[in-house]
Amino acid sequence: MKHMFISDAHAHVEKEITVKGWLSNKRSSGKIAFLELRDGSGFIQAVVVKSAVSEETWGAVDALTQESSLAITGTVSAHPKKEDVFELQVVSIDIIHIAEEYPISNKEHGPDFLMNNRHLWLRSKKQWAILRIRDVVETAINEYLHIEHFIRTDSPIFTPNSCENTTDLFAVPYFDLGEAFLSQSGQLYIEAAISSVGRCYDFGPVFRAEKSVTKRHLTEFWMMDAEAAFVEHDENIGLQEGLVKHIVKSCLEKCTKEFEILERDTTPLKAVVEKSFTRYTYKEAIVKLQELGSDIKDGEDLGNDDEGMLTKDSDVPVFIEKWPSAIKPFYMKIDPDDSAIALCDDLIGIEGAGEIIGGSQREDDFDALLERIKEDGLDEKEYEWYTDLRKYGAVPHSGFGIGVERMVRWMSGVAHIRECIPFPRTVNRIKP
Amino acid sequence: MKHMFISDAHAHVEKEITVKGWLSNKRSSGKIAFLELRDGSGFIQAVVVKSAVSEETWGAVDALTQESSLAITGTVSAHPKKEDVFELQVVSIDIIHIAEEYPISNKEHGPDFLMNNRHLWLRSKKQWAILRIRDVVETAINEYLHIEHFIRTDSPIFTPNSCENTTDLFAVPYFDLGEAFLSQSGQLYIEAAISSVGRCYDFGPVFRAEKSVTKRHLTEFWMMDAEAAFVEHDENIGLQEGLVKHIVKSCLEKCTKEFEILERDTTPLKAVVEKSFTRYTYKEAIVKLQELGSDIKDGEDLGNDDEGMLTKDSDVPVFIEKWPSAIKPFYMKIDPDDSAIALCDDLIGIEGAGEIIGGSQREDDFDALLERIKEDGLDEKEYEWYTDLRKYGAVPHSGFGIGVERMVRWMSGVAHIRECIPFPRTVNRIKP
Repeated sequence: MKHMFISDAHAHVEKEITVKGWLSNKRSSGKIAFLELRDGSGFIQAVVVKSAVSEETWGAVDALTQESSLAITGTVSAHPKKEDVFELQVVSIDIIHIAEEYPISNKEHGPDFLMNNRHLWLRSKKQWAILRIRDVVETAINEYLHIEHFIRTDSPIFTPNSCENTTDLFAVPYFDLGEAFLSQSGQLYIEAAISSVGRCYDFGPVFRAEKSVTKRHLTEFWMMDAEAAFVEHDENIGLQEGLVKHIVKSCLEKCTKEFEILERDTTPLKAVVEKSFTRYTYKEAIVKLQELGSDIKDGEDLGNDDEGMLTKDSDVPVFIEKWPSAIKPFYMKIDPDDSAIALCDDLIGIEGAGEIIGGSQREDDFDALLERIKEDGLDEKEYEWYTDLRKYGAVPHSGFGIGVERMVRWMSGVAHIRECIPFPRTVNRIKP
Repeated sequence: MKHMFISDAHAHVEKEITVKGWLSNKRSSGKIAFLELRDGSGFIQAVVVKSAVSEETWGAVDALTQESSLAITGTVSAHPKKEDVFELQVVSIDIIHIAEEYPISNKEHGPDFLMNNRHLWLRSKKQWAILRIRDVVETAINEYLHIEHFIRTDSPIFTPNSCENTTDLFAVPYFDLGEAFLSQSGQLYIEAAISSVGRCYDFGPVFRAEKSVTKRHLTEFWMMDAEAAFVEHDENIGLQEGLVKHIVKSCLEKCTKEFEILERDTTPLKAVVEKSFTRYTYKEAIVKLQELGSDIKDGEDLGNDDEGMLTKDSDVPVFIEKWPSAIKPFYMKIDPDDSAIALCDDLIGIEGAGEIIGGSQREDDFDALLERIKEDGLDEKEYEWYTDLRKYGAVPHSGFGIGVERMVRWMSGVAHIRECIPFPRTVNRIKP
């Protein structure tokens, strides 16, 4: 019998096919049974009428426990009332494996229990939906960047020095070379690659040995860093807005069922695709925050509460640009109009998404960059290869980094970032 | 003036545009100068006629050193003889940055010098071509898997235990949890995810603390692991063949210029797309190798020389399937027809590419798997989450892993794998 993926059911109406999957749920009246079957591509209700099937198949219905694997042969029918919903009129059932009593039930489980059983928890409908949204987010990122002439150039994980923060590094004993550090960002490396390929991005795991235990931190998470030659601050912000819009649009187009499962109201996402994002300078943001009652002072970094306050009444993400260079890293270009300002931006998502993107134009002047490296107390010898890039055909260039899990968290509307990566790693967890 | 990417030149013939890039080369007769310009998307020759430009622009031609960055405004013209080649008739030149004397010349440099200057070496035409081929290989992998109903589910880098080899692991001190190990393969994790999403893959860096210094080994390299529920040994091999064909086809379609630069004869690649791959059982391969003069004995693993011998006269890649289970890992399914055989395969590329893919059907029986874990002296407690998967709706399933750098090495035809990743990491190198 021809195999069908549930997501292709629309193409097999009135045909007899076989679906292979797992039993998510079962209801039976004694004469008719409803099996909720999933195969990874989707969910379908299989209807078994006792009088229409063999004794063996009806027996199978009885034997099946939750999570049992099975092959169902039947005819696809369109749901009489609901559009784009299909059912399976069962002809026969082959049991593949009867599951033991499944430890995850519909009752509430504590987060520790669920995290210890992450390998099974992934099967829950909600987790399925988040995994699928993550795939769509990642695919959309690859798509958009290729449309905009970027190619992918993977940056290394083992690095001799750190891009931003010298304290939160994981150190790995490395043969006779002492220690390597796990990358916190590939930015410096893709800056080198733009002189070859013009526009490029990396997309991989990065690592922070931060002790923070919050809803927004993981020790291992996925970042996409993009970098483009001849792109300056304003165009850089345009690329970021374009990327976020493309991701949101992809999710709206491809994740209807996923959003339904997550009971995620997509109205706010539609506005994000249609409207221009808001842009505040850092100075404007501080004034606004103080008006709104924050005790933040000029020159200070924004806290989570501040980010929330700034976006609370906004229906689009908010760029905060042109920060004080004193609180930003050495590689950001200083505003030619104001030496205290860095040409950078953070993008704050709506609905409590927090910071989604950080970007900046990069310092392309050799002397200015070297001075910043010295000011920050970094070892200029370690950055020689990076400053080299300013000796041989320096160009204005800019880039940004987007955190995959934060984007997935925003899209799926879940509270905790640990649900936005298949196997989360935190200060207290490296298992399963 | 409208900006143009060089790769879009065909769409701008007879139009005046601006190209921004770097000077790769310069020839001048005193009255006419030829500038080879690159912008990352491609290369174009700009023709400057002294009598047709301002004194300032002609002065710029004199001042420009190799690797200087510049913006050229001019009119695009189609090459009178060569198809798909365009030139730029220069109107004006803006110098962005004059490069210092560039350390990489056309003369031969030693590999250590080039590796120390990898951040600059990437700009060489050949390295540009390899970077672009790598992007096409990676994109093709993502494409093919989505066509075949796989979604991407990233597996963790920090792991508590190892998938295959317990000796070649990088250990990382991890807060109060002792040590985490850097992943050598995400396979076990994506096996868990298939019960949620049916078919999935991961695509990220993996790590081997192997002391081998060969042309085919890196300590950090990129792997794609795919896993599919309800797929058995034969179908698994079909997916692998389909993937390799799709990658090769994509490279043939998209990398014409790159292959030209690498002087890579693409005739062998065309055969790979068109013909069916060869399949030998391990036993057949051993007989063949012995006939060909190898001193390999039944039950032994194949060496590089053996792989070369088996594929030397083949115009398609060669699967070697059904290996002795004694020399294969615990998770491979035992052939129901022969308990000494594992249902697995290696795919050996042609043209000296070596092993490209390793795959197998996985053991889905709880008792059989547990026995293999014990036989291998592994800690069953550590694998409890993995054996769990066989308790709740076990299904026949299979998967495989493809090494990105090996595939790129084969496609680009370069000798050494260190050129197939932007910033290679080896036993002796973590810089730049």
